[in-house]
Amino acid sequence: MTHASSLLGWDLEINMPEAGASARGQAQSEIELLRQKMTIDLTGPVEKADKLKALNDAEKGVVRVVKRELNYYQKVPPKLVGELQKATIDSNIPWREARKKSDFSIFKPHLEKITELKREEANYLDPSGNPYNALLDLSEEGLTITDLDKVFSELVPQLKKILAKTLSQGVFPEKHALEEIDYDVNSLKQVNEKILQLLGMPDKRFRQDVSTHPFSIKIASDDVRITTRYEPKDFKASMFGLMHECGHALYELQVDHELQFAPTATGVSAGVHESQSRFWENIVGRSKEFVPLVYPS
Amino acid sequence: MTHASSLLGWDLEINMPEAGASARGQAQSEIELLRQKMTIDLTGPVEKADKLKALNDAEKGVVRVVKRELNYYQKVPPKLVGELQKATIDSNIPWREARKKSDFSIFKPHLEKITELKREEANYLDPSGNPYNALLDLSEEGLTITDLDKVFSELVPQLKKILAKTLSQGVFPEKHALEEIDYDVNSLKQVNEKILQLLGMPDKRFRQDVSTHPFSIKIASDDVRITTRYEPKDFKASMFGLMHECGHALYELQVDHELQFAPTATGVSAGVHESQSRFWENIVGRSKEFVPLVYPS
Repeated sequence: MTHASSLLGWDLEINMPEAGASARGQAQSEIELLRQKMTIDLTGPVEKADKLKALNDAEKGVVRVVKRELNYYQKVPPKLVGELQKATIDSNIPWREARKKSDFSIFKPHLEKITELKREEANYLDPSGNPYNALLDLSEEGLTITDLDKVFSELVPQLKKILAKTLSQGVFPEKHALEEIDYDVNSLKQVNEKILQLLGMPDKRFRQDVSTHPFSIKIASDDVRITTRYEPKDFKASMFGLMHECGHALYELQVDHELQFAPTATGVSAGVHESQSRFWENIVGRSKEFVPLVYPS
Repeated sequence: MTHASSLLGWDLEINMPEAGASARGQAQSEIELLRQKMTIDLTGPVEKADKLKALNDAEKGVVRVVKRELNYYQKVPPKLVGELQKATIDSNIPWREARKKSDFSIFKPHLEKITELKREEANYLDPSGNPYNALLDLSEEGLTITDLDKVFSELVPQLKKILAKTLSQGVFPEKHALEEIDYDVNSLKQVNEKILQLLGMPDKRFRQDVSTHPFSIKIASDDVRITTRYEPKDFKASMFGLMHECGHALYELQVDHELQFAPTATGVSAGVHESQSRFWENIVGRSKEFVPLVYPS
């Protein structure tokens, strides 16, 4: 189910003829409902497994993740599960059009619909708490607004200090001329190819395409897909975007093969995923050691 | 299920990174087993529907098609259903490699495995009859070897007569110089684009890609995909191949939208499908009226 659903999502962005969107929403919605039904059918076995003493770490992980999915599907009714899928997919082509035309009004009704459904979802998940906490938990297990406020209230002033100090020392270079000009798409494609090699992306286990907004998606342990875009202004957006997506992809590509068909065979949270993508994009990609590899001085 | 399964099949040929084949076989196999289970769950409702007097033609069609699928899934055990999917998908990359290297030995073990499984399948479907009849019925409902022998024994001598007469009259042109030369792929791509327009292929409802062997597949009523290839010898293979696939696609694209989520929303048989593809390829494409549209004299 995850394999099929991921591929349907990828194809929606990359290949699908426009008129196919309506049936795609229907298909994704049906797959998600089937997944809900199949997960709920696991209630008994999971409860049993949860009581076993002799589970190893991998097995405990599976129980933990399935319990989490079970909690979601038990609380959110099938009607809403289906509608959320359909509304998200229906919004895809209008979003692309709105972006292309810089016209928010095209996307607005879709965003309103999705927001309304997400509020309902939050309410089913936790009727008494702050709705954002319920949604945050879906990406970052257990994290709350209070936690986030604490983190950021400490981080922001410190970061501002560092920034002020760095700027005052004038060690940042002026804007480079390359950042201002329109670039040649084919030349940048060659640079990006080189970056994929430098980052050790394994040829037979991934592919790269172009999409409106760059993303990364795992279809299977040996089939991870990334996208990039060529606008063609500001080559850094394309180049660092690619490294960012490589970071997501490398994280997924390094999951133990023994777990490949287990529900644990994916990143643990949005935050950890983002730490991997930003590690490659910022810590590696913008380092003094890496830049000369693609821009010989 | 059909939507997802078709897309997984298409992607296997067009996009999938090589290493993804094993998980793809697994995924397709699981989808097919789910489809078997869901179809068998329809046994009661279909038997009920079959007894109703007041069904219209569309409803009768649905009952007929589901009964046919039910018959298949009731007779062929899940283990074999899954193995057939897996074996077919596992053979795809080796087949491409064998074709590329003109080395049958790469594909041979896969063909042997599939043949063995198809024999088992035939045996489950009809243990007492000729195995080929059981398999023929899957593509062409009710047709038997005896029927085919009768058709061909009448057709072949007549066709030979027509061919001999035509050749003796010397009305066929000599081979054209264009047929012998290597063609420029980009130029032929432009010709093919023009052909898609001439055949009225609806822009937003289909897409075209390149694959090892040309094929056509319906993902949904408004999402039909065709492929072509550029070898680049003998432009006719690419050009008429494209028209052939357009024929398949136009047949699927013209199915009534009201049926789009019904099991009847597809071609009725391999033979009728082929009649449509060959109509566009041969009757239209090779006609005195069509050729001047792409090759002005």
